[in-house]
Amino acid sequence: MNERMALFPGSFDLLTNGHVDIIKRSAKLFDKLVVGIFTNTTKKPLFTSQEKKKIIENIVKPLEKVKVQIFEKKLTVDIAKKMKVYYIIRSIRNTRDYEYERNIARLNQEISQTVETVFLLADSSFEHLSSGTLKEIYLFGGDISSYVPKEVFSILDKKRRK
Amino acid sequence: MNERMALFPGSFDLLTNGHVDIIKRSAKLFDKLVVGIFTNTTKKPLFTSQEKKKIIENIVKPLEKVKVQIFEKKLTVDIAKKMKVYYIIRSIRNTRDYEYERNIARLNQEISQTVETVFLLADSSFEHLSSGTLKEIYLFGGDISSYVPKEVFSILDKKRRK
Amino acid sequence: MNERMALFPGSFDLLTNGHVDIIKRSAKLFDKLVVGIFTNTTKKPLFTSQEKKKIIENIVKPLEKVKVQIFEKKLTVDIAKKMKVYYIIRSIRNTRDYEYERNIARLNQEISQTVETVFLLADSSFEHLSSGTLKEIYLFGGDISSYVPKEVFSILDKKRRK
Amino acid sequence: MNERMALFPGSFDLLTNGHVDIIKRSAKLFDKLVVGIFTNTTKKPLFTSQEKKKIIENIVKPLEKVKVQIFEKKLTVDIAKKMKVYYIIRSIRNTRDYEYERNIARLNQEISQTVETVFLLADSSFEHLSSGTLKEIYLFGGDISSYVPKEVFSILDKKRRK
Amino acid sequence: MNERMALFPGSFDLLTNGHVDIIKRSAKLFDKLVVGIFTNTTKKPLFTSQEKKKIIENIVKPLEKVKVQIFEKKLTVDIAKKMKVYYIIRSIRNTRDYEYERNIARLNQEISQTVETVFLLADSSFEHLSSGTLKEIYLFGGDISSYVPKEVFSILDKKRRK
Amino acid sequence: MNERMALFPGSFDLLTNGHVDIIKRSAKLFDKLVVGIFTNTTKKPLFTSQEKKKIIENIVKPLEKVKVQIFEKKLTVDIAKKMKVYYIIRSIRNTRDYEYERNIARLNQEISQTVETVFLLADSSFEHLSSGTLKEIYLFGGDISSYVPKEVFSILDKKRRK
Repeated sequence: MNERMALFPGSFDLLTNGHVDIIKRSAKLFDKLVVGIFTNTTKKPLFTSQEKKKIIENIVKPLEKVKVQIFEKKLTVDIAKKMKVYYIIRSIRNTRDYEYERNIARLNQEISQTVETVFLLADSSFEHLSSGTLKEIYLFGGDISSYVPKEVFSILDKKRRK
Repeated sequence: MNERMALFPGSFDLLTNGHVDIIKRSAKLFDKLVVGIFTNTTKKPLFTSQEKKKIIENIVKPLEKVKVQIFEKKLTVDIAKKMKVYYIIRSIRNTRDYEYERNIARLNQEISQTVETVFLLADSSFEHLSSGTLKEIYLFGGDISSYVPKEVFSILDKKRRK
Repeated sequence: MNERMALFPGSFDLLTNGHVDIIKRSAKLFDKLVVGIFTNTTKKPLFTSQEKKKIIENIVKPLEKVKVQIFEKKLTVDIAKKMKVYYIIRSIRNTRDYEYERNIARLNQEISQTVETVFLLADSSFEHLSSGTLKEIYLFGGDISSYVPKEVFSILDKKRRK
Repeated sequence: MNERMALFPGSFDLLTNGHVDIIKRSAKLFDKLVVGIFTNTTKKPLFTSQEKKKIIENIVKPLEKVKVQIFEKKLTVDIAKKMKVYYIIRSIRNTRDYEYERNIARLNQEISQTVETVFLLADSSFEHLSSGTLKEIYLFGGDISSYVPKEVFSILDKKRRK
Repeated sequence: MNERMALFPGSFDLLTNGHVDIIKRSAKLFDKLVVGIFTNTTKKPLFTSQEKKKIIENIVKPLEKVKVQIFEKKLTVDIAKKMKVYYIIRSIRNTRDYEYERNIARLNQEISQTVETVFLLADSSFEHLSSGTLKEIYLFGGDISSYVPKEVFSILDKKRRK
Repeated sequence: MNERMALFPGSFDLLTNGHVDIIKRSAKLFDKLVVGIFTNTTKKPLFTSQEKKKIIENIVKPLEKVKVQIFEKKLTVDIAKKMKVYYIIRSIRNTRDYEYERNIARLNQEISQTVETVFLLADSSFEHLSSGTLKEIYLFGGDISSYVPKEVFSILDKKRRK
């Protein structure tokens, strides 16, 4: 049987424990998993792509199957085709995620003709987390340390002190 | 029986095949259809209103019943009242569209006392298309030619070369 | 221009004021409207088809364009094709209705190749009404007279006395 | 029995009749209600916090139990803890509100360990109102006087004349 | 200040830990809480009303404010009016619950003119529980002991042995 | 790497083209796929389990990785544990499916501690199909041959002639 490879794309601008959970569960399902850091055009990021890469690499170090890569200003589906990846991993937290992801998954399937999106449900302990909300709580001085990996938190802390 | 006239309002900033489908289906249902190009305050447009008008007029040329008009900084419901149009056409692609359109339709009905919004469902081949997503795919170099009329695509191409 | 005809199908087992509102609004939109009383296989009806017909005919008497017909154990789409009706009218009260109606509308379109479903939103004063809930309230002795036409109420009252 | 106190937080940038309705209904349910004016980071406000406070105070004057307070750049849950308020009041207008509020309520509960969010449903006459849509209608010259308290309308009018 | 009383109505045919959680949280919010066991017409119950009453009473014994009462074939809103209860407590687990409860709450408000429904969100640990699903798991031999109070489980066990 | 095995459970009482599509797509993702025919307690089936098995086996014959098995009156999660299957495959067609499947997936995860549910989205050409609706169309004499495999259709035809 061929090696099964998957791509987990995201902007990861504030990696949450929910993201980490999806990475771990996806890594079990596939032979190789690429966590792809993509640019989100509509929002100004809090972290640089290099910072995001370092954070995620630190976390996935024990998982040999997982690689982290930066894809600046690229389309997920173009990267998937170039890398010959047939599976994209996405997670769903609520009906709004579902409707959004359905549109993207279908566009990706139509554009590539080969890419299938596989969905995992957000674990119930992470279903209420969103990077946007956690960033807002952080900006207002709230404690988000139980929602993000400590690697994220220490960089955030340095940023704040500046 | 009086002439039945309808208004199909939108910002049409990247006219999709889904919009064209709704125009054609609405034109069958009414004696006269006005495609109204309105200003969306919250997003900076990619096309000028004149470009939008030219694109849509080119497409609806074979449909005698359809007229295209620009309404800069006007309220849909005010235009409808001024033109004595009693029907507004809107399309629904998913539950989020539905909840948004329900609010607007009710406000328009209450403000005008006369305007009824008639809904067509997006055809299943166009249900996943949104101007916003297609613009993002285009900006990242993706091929959107199967989702927008060729008139849109050729203007986009000219814009890119500049 | 050809006559525009529409079919408003339903089981109408407890006609509500919401149904009547949709009938009136649809009658304005079309040259002719047929209210079609269809059999619902899964639920035992409270009213006979003849009772339903009499009730609705009484209500639509002032509306010349509207006819009422019984179609026992028939498919809506077959009736539409046989009658050369190209428009089916349906109403939406919430996201659940929307998702249900989307499936049926698409099946009807695919099976007939000609039938378009036109949607009106339930008026906000009737959005919370369902025949099922009103029947349950009635059975428990609640007063539903402000939610159903008086024609329905008087037959219900006779049924109860028996 | 101890005094039951609740906090109704919001940005209230265009107080609607829907907000006023929730304030009145909440005031009946609790012994004391604090309407908290919070800063929304993502949108530039139309009204200053002082203007908002004056407007709401004018409206709640007959309700002795209700106080209005400004909390600039503060987290709702931090304020609730500091004030020893155990109940937050929020209103739901549709499924999108519901999913958004569910996430925030759960975060607030987890962060504080003590705060419970109590939900009232928007009254059906106000279910379609949102500050954002009303502001857009106002900017395009529409009449929103039947959707906002007259106190709001008179300040808006002064702003426009400037 | 007057005594604040609330009614938590339900069929409770398989009381879940989710129900118990809502009872406890509601008891804090009100001076007196009546858990009302109502008849659900559409489903044949697994427990008799007397069994349900005994189970719930056992659980709420430490909560002095809570009473349990059986209301066979009665309308919630009629009971609320008769008891001069102005608040009904209901819980929401997902968008489907929300849309269902919205309709019922509005009908109850319109019929009574006095009854307000107050909503608590299901705690995230109980959000996925429904009496129906748990009954099905039980019938197929699954272990549901972590989802229902032990009082329920021991009666279920006796029923099975018969 | 260990063999990856998945279970696709269902009642399959009217196997649709949508089911077949999910079976084919799942078979690519896993080394071995068991299509499990389970009993649905609430609805009387149209097909016997043996008929269902024969139909599906005929269709999956070209797919070596796929086996079909009957599990009468068993819990999906118990079967998964007994077979040491760690993945359950389910498909989502709309927000209602999503909310239903989320609950079941979470229960299965909690009960088994090992089972992960992997979701594929229904292909857009099958998103509107449900066994229930197709059965109703069939019973009313409609042509469903383009929605179900011919194996299903020929058995249905035999049943009808009896």
